[in-house]
Amino acid sequence: MNNNPIGVFDSGIGGLTVAKEIVKALPRESIIYIGDTARVPYGPRSKEVITRFAKELANFLLKRQVKCLVVACNTISATCLDEIEKISPVPVVGVVEPTIEMAIQVSKSNKIGVIGTVGTINSKAYEKKIQSLNSKIQVYSTACPLFVPIAEEGLDDHQATELVAKDYLKDLKDKGIDTLILGCTHYPLLYKIIQKTMGKEVVLADSAKPTAEKLKKLLEEKNLLADAKPKYEFYVTDAPERVLVVASRFFGKVLNANLKQIALPTL
Amino acid sequence: MNNNPIGVFDSGIGGLTVAKEIVKALPRESIIYIGDTARVPYGPRSKEVITRFAKELANFLLKRQVKCLVVACNTISATCLDEIEKISPVPVVGVVEPTIEMAIQVSKSNKIGVIGTVGTINSKAYEKKIQSLNSKIQVYSTACPLFVPIAEEGLDDHQATELVAKDYLKDLKDKGIDTLILGCTHYPLLYKIIQKTMGKEVVLADSAKPTAEKLKKLLEEKNLLADAKPKYEFYVTDAPERVLVVASRFFGKVLNANLKQIALPTL
Repeated sequence: MNNNPIGVFDSGIGGLTVAKEIVKALPRESIIYIGDTARVPYGPRSKEVITRFAKELANFLLKRQVKCLVVACNTISATCLDEIEKISPVPVVGVVEPTIEMAIQVSKSNKIGVIGTVGTINSKAYEKKIQSLNSKIQVYSTACPLFVPIAEEGLDDHQATELVAKDYLKDLKDKGIDTLILGCTHYPLLYKIIQKTMGKEVVLADSAKPTAEKLKKLLEEKNLLADAKPKYEFYVTDAPERVLVVASRFFGKVLNANLKQIALPTL
Repeated sequence: MNNNPIGVFDSGIGGLTVAKEIVKALPRESIIYIGDTARVPYGPRSKEVITRFAKELANFLLKRQVKCLVVACNTISATCLDEIEKISPVPVVGVVEPTIEMAIQVSKSNKIGVIGTVGTINSKAYEKKIQSLNSKIQVYSTACPLFVPIAEEGLDDHQATELVAKDYLKDLKDKGIDTLILGCTHYPLLYKIIQKTMGKEVVLADSAKPTAEKLKKLLEEKNLLADAKPKYEFYVTDAPERVLVVASRFFGKVLNANLKQIALPTL
């Protein structure tokens, strides 16, 4: 038994969708979440900068005695999960592997698509991992850089978004994939338009649920499950009021009373 | 005479359009430019965070003995120009005032529109300044948060951009403005679509030229003009190769050989 909190981090508040699924799967676990809203988005940045920023977030949580780290950000998970593992004395769970395992189970045609930020797609993390697990699977990937700002602006029902989605997803559609990995925590906000553009026969695989399931298994195996009344703490690096509306849409209202701003020590 | 360089800074590389106009107006002046590409964009951030980041950029240049500071970023100029002036022993020129002076000269209907990032529009810097200069002028402003990512993605000719522009600019068009201030260094990249949406009778006022002219006047008045072979140095906080294409589109090829990455000391 270990009642220390689970540490969850993300470049911003998208990772709260993962935290939410962790609460559902593990209702007795406490959580400390940090989102780097003063420097979001990480997607367009270089590997070096993403790694530096991600280590700063991990250090913040490690200092607070978390029993494990959940990297609830596809860009960080795809770019530098190994670097986080190197500095972490506790187990680390990323979003890439659980989502891939789920997608492989679902796919029948062995043709899987991946969409994500420029950082995620450039890392080729999804291709490499999928092919190491099953070399028969063909992977097609495309960066969709405008999806994050569009989702943040709430244009999930705008005709412009449909046009952008058609452009971004055209090649993937032509390849005849039957499963599409939503390789960014913001993309579920555009679920409807992505599903409509791809056609209803394509399964959309997002990270939140498989990551929470993977974490549950890990805590069980390592005998790290908590047995206490859970506490939730949320930290952001820019003013909390700027993200409150979207953040509580992602996580629920319990977040509002527990959201604080901190200055992150730099490396 | 003073052959020390002019310090120019921006949240990213958009401010290079201002630097370019400075070179045209003042061909004997040396320039040190810094763009905070590891933390761009500033537009959606809080006043507190924008101010902290902006001071870090200003300090970087002040340590390099610049003879004046040019804040080539509308978000910083609108949000915290006074804070930069407080810490600077040398004169500071922002982009807001020169652009406003130009717009007031141009407008005949006394109805001026302003578009910018959320940070710029929330600051109300344009309204306040315009009305302090001429209280008869009516100012209408709208944030266009997707214009920066759209411009960076090069979708300046995309139908989706037209739809987004129509949405953002509808109210301004209905007000019958005759002059529209492009209150963000990225917006000139979307000049065509903005002009088409507003109608050709509306004058678009961007910051680059009026800011360079204002700087020229200031250096003349203070007897700070240089008389030497100019040197240009460019610094970014993320990997230079990621911005090279757009940056040299903004400034010209001389930039390529002189672009370096630095880590910015934090406050």
